Amino acid sequence: MIALTLQDRTAFPRPLALKNVSIKDDYWSPYVGLVRGTVLPYQWEALNDRVADAEPSFAIRNFRIAAGMEQGAFGGFVFQDTDLYKWLEAVGYALAAAPDADLERIADEAIALVAAAQQKDGYLNTYFTVAEPGKRWTNLTDCHELYTAGHLIEAAVAYADATGKRTLLDVACRFADHIDETFGEHPGQIRGYDGHQEIELALVKLFEATGEKRYLDLASFFIDERGRQPSFFHQEWEARGRTSLWAPGIVQKTPPSLSYHQADKPVREQEVATGHAVRAMYMYAAMADLALRREDEGLLAACRRLWANTVGKQMYVVGSIGSTHHGEAFTFDYDLPNDTNYSETCASIGLAMFAQRMLQNEVKGEYGDVMERALYNTVTAGMATDGKHFFYVNPMEVWPAASAGNPGKHHVKAVRQKWYGCACCPPNVARLLSSLGSYAFAAGEDTLYAHLHIGAEAKLTLAGRQVAVCMNSRLPWAGEVGLTIAEAAGNGDFTLAVRVPSWSERTSFTVNGEAAAPEIKDGYAYLRRDWQAGDVFAMTLDMHPRRIYAAAEVRANAGRVALQRGPLVYCLEEADNGAPLAGLAIRADAELREVPGEGRLAGAVLIETEGARLETPSSAGGALYRAEPPVRTPQRIVAVPYALWGNREPGEMQVWVREEP
Amino acid sequence: MIALTLQDRTAFPRPLALKNVSIKDDYWSPYVGLVRGTVLPYQWEALNDRVADAEPSFAIRNFRIAAGMEQGAFGGFVFQDTDLYKWLEAVGYALAAAPDADLERIADEAIALVAAAQQKDGYLNTYFTVAEPGKRWTNLTDCHELYTAGHLIEAAVAYADATGKRTLLDVACRFADHIDETFGEHPGQIRGYDGHQEIELALVKLFEATGEKRYLDLASFFIDERGRQPSFFHQEWEARGRTSLWAPGIVQKTPPSLSYHQADKPVREQEVATGHAVRAMYMYAAMADLALRREDEGLLAACRRLWANTVGKQMYVVGSIGSTHHGEAFTFDYDLPNDTNYSETCASIGLAMFAQRMLQNEVKGEYGDVMERALYNTVTAGMATDGKHFFYVNPMEVWPAASAGNPGKHHVKAVRQKWYGCACCPPNVARLLSSLGSYAFAAGEDTLYAHLHIGAEAKLTLAGRQVAVCMNSRLPWAGEVGLTIAEAAGNGDFTLAVRVPSWSERTSFTVNGEAAAPEIKDGYAYLRRDWQAGDVFAMTLDMHPRRIYAAAEVRANAGRVALQRGPLVYCLEEADNGAPLAGLAIRADAELREVPGEGRLAGAVLIETEGARLETPSSAGGALYRAEPPVRTPQRIVAVPYALWGNREPGEMQVWVREEP
Repeated sequence: MIALTLQDRTAFPRPLALKNVSIKDDYWSPYVGLVRGTVLPYQWEALNDRVADAEPSFAIRNFRIAAGMEQGAFGGFVFQDTDLYKWLEAVGYALAAAPDADLERIADEAIALVAAAQQKDGYLNTYFTVAEPGKRWTNLTDCHELYTAGHLIEAAVAYADATGKRTLLDVACRFADHIDETFGEHPGQIRGYDGHQEIELALVKLFEATGEKRYLDLASFFIDERGRQPSFFHQEWEARGRTSLWAPGIVQKTPPSLSYHQADKPVREQEVATGHAVRAMYMYAAMADLALRREDEGLLAACRRLWANTVGKQMYVVGSIGSTHHGEAFTFDYDLPNDTNYSETCASIGLAMFAQRMLQNEVKGEYGDVMERALYNTVTAGMATDGKHFFYVNPMEVWPAASAGNPGKHHVKAVRQKWYGCACCPPNVARLLSSLGSYAFAAGEDTLYAHLHIGAEAKLTLAGRQVAVCMNSRLPWAGEVGLTIAEAAGNGDFTLAVRVPSWSERTSFTVNGEAAAPEIKDGYAYLRRDWQAGDVFAMTLDMHPRRIYAAAEVRANAGRVALQRGPLVYCLEEADNGAPLAGLAIRADAELREVPGEGRLAGAVLIETEGARLETPSSAGGALYRAEPPVRTPQRIVAVPYALWGNREPGEMQVWVREEP
Repeated sequence: MIALTLQDRTAFPRPLALKNVSIKDDYWSPYVGLVRGTVLPYQWEALNDRVADAEPSFAIRNFRIAAGMEQGAFGGFVFQDTDLYKWLEAVGYALAAAPDADLERIADEAIALVAAAQQKDGYLNTYFTVAEPGKRWTNLTDCHELYTAGHLIEAAVAYADATGKRTLLDVACRFADHIDETFGEHPGQIRGYDGHQEIELALVKLFEATGEKRYLDLASFFIDERGRQPSFFHQEWEARGRTSLWAPGIVQKTPPSLSYHQADKPVREQEVATGHAVRAMYMYAAMADLALRREDEGLLAACRRLWANTVGKQMYVVGSIGSTHHGEAFTFDYDLPNDTNYSETCASIGLAMFAQRMLQNEVKGEYGDVMERALYNTVTAGMATDGKHFFYVNPMEVWPAASAGNPGKHHVKAVRQKWYGCACCPPNVARLLSSLGSYAFAAGEDTLYAHLHIGAEAKLTLAGRQVAVCMNSRLPWAGEVGLTIAEAAGNGDFTLAVRVPSWSERTSFTVNGEAAAPEIKDGYAYLRRDWQAGDVFAMTLDMHPRRIYAAAEVRANAGRVALQRGPLVYCLEEADNGAPLAGLAIRADAELREVPGEGRLAGAVLIETEGARLETPSSAGGALYRAEPPVRTPQRIVAVPYALWGNREPGEMQVWVREEP
């Protein structure tokens, strides 16, 4: 391994510590509150198998069995432990934002249980401890063993940051040390890596939390080893007799797909996003982490290429990725079907994680723009306004009858589901929303970056001054955004840098009410001065509704238009427009008017415009095919924010709408 | 079972015997010749495992092993025997049209082999004889045992009709007798039916060939028993330990789908076409056969309902059915996606078989129209002009990159395939094309019906007169169709009835060159007179190219148009129009001009029209999404017959094209 210098740990725009950011935002606070008030308690019940009409999780029970506190068989998926770890991570973030003695007590008990399940040598995984004790590290491809360790580490770092308590962090370090002994290039070590990336980014966090460079080196090992040929996954598959966890008892004819696992070539040679979308995003995030900390230009170049391919050729307009449910995966450039896409909520969260890391490497608006697109559209669409129903798949188009009646669309749900057996998305939404401040804000030595325009109060040190800032934002409904200096001890210049979203065609700036002309660079507005308490740096964004078109290579969107206003992409729902939505077209020259939402959409801004419906002429007499052209009937069309779709009666939904000249 | 009178066997419009029809048609004869000259010899080689780069069939070898002439294990699918049976059936039809001593000798040898493999009790199935001797009739759901028997029977009847040789017919009768003993309502009999319908229509043929009414009764038993509850398939599944042939060693959680097998309710209560499309068509054909012969109005009503649902709500414009590859099945009304459809060639053949039977119950143009639609478009598209490459799936839209790169479209092939392991479609095309005369022509006591306008010479008795007629047709390229009386002994009135296709908006008729006004009834033109040799009943069809629109309920075709000329539906190919085809739209008011095809499309009439391509403006700079509207560039658009697509360089194809006002 090439020895690389570690970059100065303060020189990059580091996300603000969650303890120092408090989200206070009309739009986001209710989501954050839902996580705190509903998702975390509900998930705790689920982890304990106390949700009446849901499949049991088995997660807590598995730990009790592994700890010798209960007899029984392992239950759930091989990676079931991560349900508890993700919950603990989200709890850590929640506690960082606001203390909660009851929640902390419950978490401490859970952590004690986790610690009790750890083996003497540091190993910790209830599946292998309970169900297959002799099979540790024999099927990295399928068994998520390091993935599970990664979620333990993330939880441990989050919980230690929030509470200062080290119990879980010590558990994580012991396991990480065990992994460090087990994996590597030396004789007797496994020269391999996990089927599901996650350990890599977690080890970077563990390095940050402990200062132990060997955790960073281990992350680099997993990243650098991945994709080397001959393939570790294929060797491992041969060694275990060509079997797979997912098809017990079958000797397989074909080895595991390498591109599915992003292991078909060394990561720094990869150019196109392939395979399972969440795996890809977690890996890219770790690559960006390492590129930064190793000052590794080659790795950063790979990150830039994979970013460009992901968002420039394989991303849906709502910031979602994964064009097919087969393997929850990418397909190929410009293949963005609207009616069969997967677009997993977790993958959009992973995309935000990747963007967050790229912003640490280089402050460029495109990263923040995509993060915003994913968060304001897909991630929020993923959760119902009751906090108890979730989309794993985020369709671009829904015909409920097809979801029910066409097997190729069974994955496309018209209604958010309660809680799945594989509960990946709800806990992921919970940990993202609980840590929103670390996505929205970052700071370098003398610069505060607002990547997202989310209302919040933050405390930090800038150019040696103790500063408190208050972000006010009327997004996504109105375009006023302001950063107020609440406190600023002493004197000296520092910089406020606010992302100027690419969707805002005309943006104006003021300082203390006077027009200002900040430096605009790479999509950020920079204003440097001797800021003092009471100063306000404000920005007015252009919120006019606009039409969006896709590149001609996207076959699915030819002749179609999408609507966007501010960061929000809109969609049509049957509730407002009638069915079939496919029959509707928006007139290319029609005005797009803002109208207030009502009922469950109260508070939202809807878009109203003019279009027409194509209908079967009555002369057709019910024929399936006919020579008479369709009848065109003018119709008012109403679009609602995609983030809020499916919160009324179930029906059709469509993002890309036909456009007529 | 209710005793029903058998209808007078001459009173219905019976398809002409193949011995009495000789196809001589510029369009169809090359297809028929391909079957005779290429498909049948090639298939014989395949059956004998002598095709170098194809998977072995094992079919002949299985029979040799079952006959004790060779040692070895069974190979291929459980229904592999049918490959030989379908070949023998097609050979029978071919020999009926024209003797061929070499072909007959080869077939006789194959028949001797089949006879040698028959068990003493009449049972005949090489899979169960060789691979699972003790398991006969234990898994009707999966094992195609009666289906295989049905294909044996169809082959036997065809071969006996053609050659007068009874060896195979005797084999078939012995097996049918064995089945008749095994299945029924009496104690000790199996009260069940096959997972794949086919035996039912075959038994009707065997009844016709032998006059043995018990074969008809057995067909009725299978039809009437099907779908009764509690389900035979579920009972059988329980009895064999909840296993499936298709997932060996697995105890299944859910029983076989009944709707997939058209067994969720008694057949005469069924209203909607469900499940595997080929199974459905074979069953409907048998239902129509029995409705006719039993004068069973209830069964006929069910046939009419299922017909109306199939062609009125679930059929593609090219006469194909089966909207999903999951189970090669129907989905639900108006679900006709263009990019993921299955539309198996065999299913369109089955649809033609159903139509052919309905025409025996009632002479209505809609049956002939659909038969024509299926044959002129999907069935011919299924075979390349070299006779060696076949489509099993007939897509309505192809993007080759998606076929390769999107797993949900792997079944959609951009190029015809050589010969599959499951070789259902090529032999089915062969037997259909070899028996085309029986689809095109039928006769009642005093009426000759031309259901299709295919050039042919036919001999028959009409109103007691020996008649020879000659059909001349310039379809599908030109609209002139004529029936010439070549010979007509004696005197007396009889009727010529010619279907007037619904696509012909203005049709004119002549008799011996003079304008005539035949009676038009239910889509047929009837002319009754004392026809004499030399008389010509001619019809000129309206061949102007026309636009076709789908009902508004078909989401996939909203804002789209298809082109049709005569019986042929057209499509766009990349070769003529460039990619992406999705970017093209046809102008709603543009003239549709006929232009001659060139190169591999020489002889065909193409359609040329005006439209435009939507392109990404250069200002977009390669962005995936942008605010600038697309640039519209006028473009000449060329459409080719769907039947001939994919005979040039591989590329995109699209039937339903966007239309712009």
